[in-house]
Amino acid sequence: MRELYRANLDRLGRDLVEIARLVHRAALDGRTALETADVHGAERVISEDARIDMLQESLDDQAVRLLSLQAPVATDLRTVVASLRMSSSLERMGDLARHIAQLTRLRYPEHVIPEAVRPVFTQLADAAVEVAEEAVLLLETLDLAHADRIHALNVDVNALHLSVFRAIASPDWTASPSTTTDVTLASRYFERFTDHGLAVALKVRYLVTGECHHHRGADANGA
Amino acid sequence: MRELYRANLDRLGRDLVEIARLVHRAALDGRTALETADVHGAERVISEDARIDMLQESLDDQAVRLLSLQAPVATDLRTVVASLRMSSSLERMGDLARHIAQLTRLRYPEHVIPEAVRPVFTQLADAAVEVAEEAVLLLETLDLAHADRIHALNVDVNALHLSVFRAIASPDWTASPSTTTDVTLASRYFERFTDHGLAVALKVRYLVTGECHHHRGADANGA
Repeated sequence: MRELYRANLDRLGRDLVEIARLVHRAALDGRTALETADVHGAERVISEDARIDMLQESLDDQAVRLLSLQAPVATDLRTVVASLRMSSSLERMGDLARHIAQLTRLRYPEHVIPEAVRPVFTQLADAAVEVAEEAVLLLETLDLAHADRIHALNVDVNALHLSVFRAIASPDWTASPSTTTDVTLASRYFERFTDHGLAVALKVRYLVTGECHHHRGADANGA
Repeated sequence: MRELYRANLDRLGRDLVEIARLVHRAALDGRTALETADVHGAERVISEDARIDMLQESLDDQAVRLLSLQAPVATDLRTVVASLRMSSSLERMGDLARHIAQLTRLRYPEHVIPEAVRPVFTQLADAAVEVAEEAVLLLETLDLAHADRIHALNVDVNALHLSVFRAIASPDWTASPSTTTDVTLASRYFERFTDHGLAVALKVRYLVTGECHHHRGADANGA
């Protein structure tokens, strides 16, 4: 019984890593599709999101079964509850990568992002890919250096997100209203993606140190 | 022991209703503030959001304590896990009402929403208020008629959200790029708000009927 219990907890951890890997893959493919206006790449991100959703459901079922049959306490209980939360965050990251891909598909063969803000979006997409990669490493190793890196990337992304709004407000902005909408949403999707990555990092930090840093979201300015 | 256990489960349910009431209040006050460009009302929504956050944390702590000390199984376990999920959704609804209020404050004394789309936003805001009200009633009574109503409101909101994008894309759209960004975000916030309401409705439906309707979010078109 004890061994089965350990095996089930370990499987929960492995499945979380697996979901994080799929999210990282979605961020990578979504970045390429966005930057090259590649509709096939976008389609792939969109269809692969179903796998993330399925894995999350399976993980949640496992977690509830574990709670039911083995009634973990103390650290193990915290781990199971945190896993439920982290799988939600990862699933949302998959959705957001899908949204970026859907914008790419919607505007194909045009580019979603006008040239004026492409450098900012290159940085946003690179940061999102790195957040996802660091989330994989963090869940694999529980080394909090990866949580620190996610935190730093989040600070960068918030600044980039605001710089997108500044670009839109500047007198040089010549894009059409629909492009302005696309740029606004794409920037928001990247900001939300990395913020969910931060939520994962804070959960792991809590599990490792016992310290709770409440996650209030980084979009506190309403923009 | 048994009585204490029941009392704790009941308290979880009451606290969920209390959070839903605060979310309803935020939706009501946020609507008035948006429609009248009332900076004081907006400030109130923003500061009151901290209470929702605190109540959610307290509910989550209670739920984990209940899992730890009383190891519920079967329906009770499902209820506790669903409560954790619903408190997350309600907390996000509070954040989204706050974001609307933050836009109101940011643009004060101007209106956030230009006249051309005010009728659509009146409908969006009314739907959001009603979703929150129905969530309160649903959590109080577990009467699935309220879940049905939330479902119907969600369908309306998705159509309204798309009509905002159509208005922005029309040749008659004359708003500035920054206003276009505000309108895009505000519409997205309302869409997310009601979608989280739908997530609550689906959880309650699952608890009552045992049927699982997966919630994939309603923003499937990436816009």
